[in-house]
Amino acid sequence: MREALVAAAFELFLERGFEQTTIDDIVSLAGVGRRSFFRYFPAKEDVVFPDHERGLAEMTEFLDSGTGEEDPVKHASDAARLVLRMYAEQPSFSVQRYRLTRKVPGLRAYELSVVWRYEHTLAAYLRGRFADRPDGPLRADVIAAAVVAAHNHALRTWLRSGGESDWVAEVDAAMAFVTSTWSDRPTDTTPEGADATDDVVVLVASRRAPLWRMVQGIETAIGDTRRI
Amino acid sequence: MREALVAAAFELFLERGFEQTTIDDIVSLAGVGRRSFFRYFPAKEDVVFPDHERGLAEMTEFLDSGTGEEDPVKHASDAARLVLRMYAEQPSFSVQRYRLTRKVPGLRAYELSVVWRYEHTLAAYLRGRFADRPDGPLRADVIAAAVVAAHNHALRTWLRSGGESDWVAEVDAAMAFVTSTWSDRPTDTTPEGADATDDVVVLVASRRAPLWRMVQGIETAIGDTRRI
Repeated sequence: MREALVAAAFELFLERGFEQTTIDDIVSLAGVGRRSFFRYFPAKEDVVFPDHERGLAEMTEFLDSGTGEEDPVKHASDAARLVLRMYAEQPSFSVQRYRLTRKVPGLRAYELSVVWRYEHTLAAYLRGRFADRPDGPLRADVIAAAVVAAHNHALRTWLRSGGESDWVAEVDAAMAFVTSTWSDRPTDTTPEGADATDDVVVLVASRRAPLWRMVQGIETAIGDTRRI
Repeated sequence: MREALVAAAFELFLERGFEQTTIDDIVSLAGVGRRSFFRYFPAKEDVVFPDHERGLAEMTEFLDSGTGEEDPVKHASDAARLVLRMYAEQPSFSVQRYRLTRKVPGLRAYELSVVWRYEHTLAAYLRGRFADRPDGPLRADVIAAAVVAAHNHALRTWLRSGGESDWVAEVDAAMAFVTSTWSDRPTDTTPEGADATDDVVVLVASRRAPLWRMVQGIETAIGDTRRI
């Protein structure tokens, strides 16, 4: 029953567009009554995206489960993984929907609004974690967007493979790019009570550079002539 | 005339929603004919977002103007600034629209689709610039999303101030966060033909750390006992 409704809905969305298809059209093609439709789906968009409310709830629950000691960027990345896992649980449905969404503008618009809600949820968590930083809100917004973009990159790669590629490997690679960019960065490890004179020296050098050159670089950076 | 049409459209969108308002409703409230409407606006959404086609064209032109030698992250950030400048050219219209968009879901959905097009345009440019990197497409997608998020953060801050804050300062701060994250990073400056043994040593230390500790850190990182 559920599958028949989904198949009918997908066929009509592709043929007429999302807005132009009514629930009556769907139940009529599927040969079932309106009440059957509402037994499975609260609204028309839930035929295509039945799991996002659950996905958002799971993400929120996971984010809230943090102790406040965890690395915030890692925690946000792990929250985004839950969404990809949700897609991966139903590979053929996800792939079919992906092809449909690319062809039906109304569905694409709906999907963008869902993505926005995930991003908003991640940003709210990160804002809380970055509350004591002057650039906290900006940092939270940018990192949330980066996590979502990395997630979507992994998801699209997997969907384009027809659900055949290794989604865990895709998401690992994508999230590693984000966490290596922002986790355990110098600015995140400045100890409590550090002041301006306690800032951090970063030396970047080729491994081939002789040690004396590296030391010279440090001396220039710290602006004094301390010697070993 | 144009202003009367905009005022009528804003009033109706707020009252009835975006989808439920027709062009006939707008011209009737403004007291003008349908032809006048189309003299100013190709379609209903252009009353609210008249400049985004121009904005996208300007962004594309600016991105294409790069010589291929410019820092790609900086160039993408500068392209995003053009959009904020477009908003800042009409502060009261932009602020009024922001308040409307937050209240009318149909407009918000339309805005998300516009944001997605800007992000897509930036990602396409960055993919070209990162074409020779194994992680090029991922890096391009994540950085494009970060640039857009930083832009939107600056834009929202300015809009919430009622168009009163210094938008140039807002966008400078937001873009500095993105460019300082990815421009001139070690991975971007690895010389051509570098091999695995030519990788880079990064030392991070408190400025208060004695020099011998820094040298010890480098020695551990390079895994040998070369001495000054």
